[in-house]
Order: sequence, then C-alpha cells, then structure tokens
Amino acid sequence: MNQPMILDGRKVATSIKEELKQTVESLSKQGVTPKLATILVGDNSSSKTYVQMKANACKKIGMESERIYLDEDTTTEELLDVITQLNEDDSVHGILLQHPVPAQIDERKAFDTIKLEKDVDGVTSHGFGSTAFQLNAYPCCTPAAIMKVIDFYDINVEGKHAIVIGRSPILGKPVSMMLLNRNATVTMSHSKTENLPELIKQADLVVAAVGKPNFVKGEWLKEGAVVLDAGYNEGNIGDVEYEACERQASAITPVPGGIGPVTIATLLQNTVEAASESLEKMNKINR
Amino acid sequence: MNQPMILDGRKVATSIKEELKQTVESLSKQGVTPKLATILVGDNSSSKTYVQMKANACKKIGMESERIYLDEDTTTEELLDVITQLNEDDSVHGILLQHPVPAQIDERKAFDTIKLEKDVDGVTSHGFGSTAFQLNAYPCCTPAAIMKVIDFYDINVEGKHAIVIGRSPILGKPVSMMLLNRNATVTMSHSKTENLPELIKQADLVVAAVGKPNFVKGEWLKEGAVVLDAGYNEGNIGDVEYEACERQASAITPVPGGIGPVTIATLLQNTVEAASESLEKMNKINR
Repeated sequence: MNQPMILDGRKVATSIKEELKQTVESLSKQGVTPKLATILVGDNSSSKTYVQMKANACKKIGMESERIYLDEDTTTEELLDVITQLNEDDSVHGILLQHPVPAQIDERKAFDTIKLEKDVDGVTSHGFGSTAFQLNAYPCCTPAAIMKVIDFYDINVEGKHAIVIGRSPILGKPVSMMLLNRNATVTMSHSKTENLPELIKQADLVVAAVGKPNFVKGEWLKEGAVVLDAGYNEGNIGDVEYEACERQASAITPVPGGIGPVTIATLLQNTVEAASESLEKMNKINR
Repeated sequence: MNQPMILDGRKVATSIKEELKQTVESLSKQGVTPKLATILVGDNSSSKTYVQMKANACKKIGMESERIYLDEDTTTEELLDVITQLNEDDSVHGILLQHPVPAQIDERKAFDTIKLEKDVDGVTSHGFGSTAFQLNAYPCCTPAAIMKVIDFYDINVEGKHAIVIGRSPILGKPVSMMLLNRNATVTMSHSKTENLPELIKQADLVVAAVGKPNFVKGEWLKEGAVVLDAGYNEGNIGDVEYEACERQASAITPVPGGIGPVTIATLLQNTVEAASESLEKMNKINR
C-alpha cells in the first residue's frame, strides 16, 4: 500500500509563528505592537469561533487585536463607516472582515473599502490584481497558506500540471495565479466544468477549493498526485475523500491540521509585515 | 476537406464602430467629445504606426485624440508626471501608454499610475483585479476583443475546455479570467509547460497569446477546435500556423483581420464609455 507524505500544516504554522514572535518583540521595543482589527457582522456561531481563534493567535505571539461586533441588521453604509475609521486609525495595522456577511451587505464593496496597506486578509480586488502581477500586496491568506505548505515540504510545481477546483475570489482565483506565477500549468475548474474526473486524472497537483464535503474521489486522482485540501466543511470534513485519496496520493494535507492553521499564521504574518511597513514609514518621516 | 468558419474581426469592429459613432455624436451634442490621450516614449517605428492608427480610428468616429511624444531617454519620474497631468485633465477621458517602453522605465509603475477611471486600455493591476472579479472596470483591450469575437460569432464557451498559451498581464492572464467568468474550464499554459501539444489536443478552444510566429502547429489541435490567434508578429504573422490549423479547426481568426481590428474598436468603446461616465458625473454635480 502507498504511504503518502502527510503535509502537516501545524508544523508549518509553528515554524512561521516562532519567527513572528521574535519580530513582534523587536517591533514592540521600537514602539509599534502589530494590531489586527477584526469585524464580525451578526451572530454566526462558526464565525464567532474563527474570530476568537484569530484573537487568541494574535495574543500568543504578542500581537494586539481588537474585535468589533456589529448587529445582524447592519447596513452596508454602516459597515463602510467602520472600515473607514479603521483605515484612518494609525494604531491598527491590519483589518479583517469576517465572512460570510449577512445578505443585505454588499460584501465586495466592503472588502474593497479596506485600504490596500491594511488588507492583511488579501481580499480586495486591487490586492488580487497586485498578487496576480507579483507586485507588493498582502496575499490572500488561504491561497498563500497552500503555497507555504508546498514550499515547506519542498514540492516542485514548476512545469507541473495543477488543477484548481473552485474559482472564488479569495481562494480558487488567487491560488491559480500563485501557482501560475510559480511556473505551474494551471487548469481552473468549477461547477460548470465538463468531464472533471478526467481532468483531475491528469493533474500532478490537485487543489480542492470547492466547499463541498468529500467532493474529490480517490479514483479521480492520478497515482502519486499531490493533494491540497483547502476545504473546511461542517464537522471538520475536507473537500476530498481523505482515505480513498490517501491511497492514491504521494502527499496530502489532512483536515483538520492541514491548510487551516497555516492560513491563520499567514494572517498574522501579513499583519506583522504591515506593522513593519508602517514603522518604516514613520521612521522615514521623522528622519 | 474541412471548411472552418473564418472569424472576421473586421466585421466585428465595423459593427462596434457604427454604434459608437452615434454615441459619440450624441455625447458631443451634450458638450462632451470623447478624447483619448496616447503616450509614446521613444522612436519605435511599429509603435509609431500603432499610435497613428489609433488616432485615425478616433477621428473616423468623431472622437478627439492627443498624441504625446516623449524622448527615448525619458525617465520613469518624467513619464509619471505626464500621466499624472493627464489624470487631472478633465478634457481627457482615456489614457493609453503605448508599449513596449524603453528599458529604463518602470512600465508597471507607469501603467499603475493611470487613474482607474481613465484606464481605457485596461492595463492597471487594479483594473485586472476588477475584471477578474467582474466589477466595473474597463477590460484590457486585446482579451476583451477575443471575447467580442466569440460573442459576435455565437461561440459557446460554457463548460468547454479552453487553453490559453501565454500568461502576460495584458493578454494571457486577463483572457483566462474572462473565459473563466464565462464558465469555460481554463488551462493557463506557458513556456515552462510540459507536454503542451498533448494539452492543446484536448482543448475545445485555443487562445494563442504567446508572441511567437507560427508557434501552434496544426497537428496539435483537436479536430473541430476553435482557434483564436491574438499574436501579431513581424510581417503580419500570427502565433498559429494558419493553413495547417485551418484544416483542423471549426472556426479560426485570420491574421491580419482577426483580433487586431477588434482590439482598436474596444479601445474606442472603452474611451467612449469613460466619456459617458464623466458626463454623468458632471450632470450629477450640476443637478
């Protein structure tokens, strides 16, 4: 039986956070403690848990965080006002709007109101364009986490054929661009794709970003494929049928403990970078 | 022998321009004549020809244009100053920086200095992100021209497998996103792609955006594939081996007379839209 390499995201996250701890300490000594502001609209209980997890993660590495809770019936205008205030608040280095937001809110408008320099979750359309063109922007966290796992485990993607299943603005689209920029050949697939199993069968690398539990079947995989599961469905179930895929894959991320922890570490890393940038700017002005 | 449909871009362009003529007339009556500013840095003779062609095209439909010629040794800073002035000039609705620019210039920085509302060539990273997310931005002209040809000839792309060869910021990347947003399954390929002919063989739709004369061979195509050739190499040669590809394809764009004329029509269309938007804004202020 095949014994694939288990791509342990906790290890990747730990290594990132250890380094961050030192950077945060050094920044704090220079008078700037990195601070993440998270906004939660409404009472979604999993969203509450995520926001709490992110706050705890900040605390653990010495960062500050601020949680803003808004009512379920908040309007887009009210939310934009809150974001604008945070954009202008020099003590805040990163802004995260927890999604999904209630239906009455124009989520895209809210995301795009976040200042590029504080878009540490990498959700703005401008940030996406900058990432796609390999310019200076904070990469969207989940796709960047996938790339960090690839790098940590030294997986070669150059010239390889990757298939991305799902095309959301915060996962499928940006990870496709990141893989392309690392010289992979990338197939972007989705709900309208014809003959998906046949396409997956050809891929050296499969990124599941579809948001449907156990969607990718083991028999769809090419033997020896690398499987990166960015799904997190209710009950901690990924987008791939884990056991069946494990038998075919040469490497696979578990759920939980795969991409998830690295996503949070990436959020912290982006926020710490934003704080460093703001310190640099201040130093330039004072010089 | 197979008789493919010839996707005549001149027809598409004519139909667009006829409509534009009327819009320009109506805008002019309301006091706003759409105006395109083109910037050419240096003495590249094909660039000169392109700029001249664009000015003529403007004139033909009643638009204004302004050509700015800068010396070969212009610095990035000098170019940015010119762009900033045009950004602030209310009489200018669209700005086009003719590329390529001389090597000493930071082309990306220059592109990204163009105000989003005047980016009628669709070259900014912000505009790319907006296009990818289907927001309100002027689409990059050559990729948008490819989509217009597809629409004019009623080619169905939903669920179909498209391969894009080439990944430039103004062609391969945006056309991939546009096809994806129209529900095609899209494979993004490039110089590092392994087994390219094998991948092309599977595609229902082939977009050649690689910039190498006669690069795509007839025998690489699946029988009945749709071939869109966005290449324009010296001597008016496309990126596909036309005669051999014609024998395999169900539809194909010629070079010249394929995507090229539609690209210019798209540039005009974007500029006219920018002028309409600016008139609407003025009317709102005066109301």
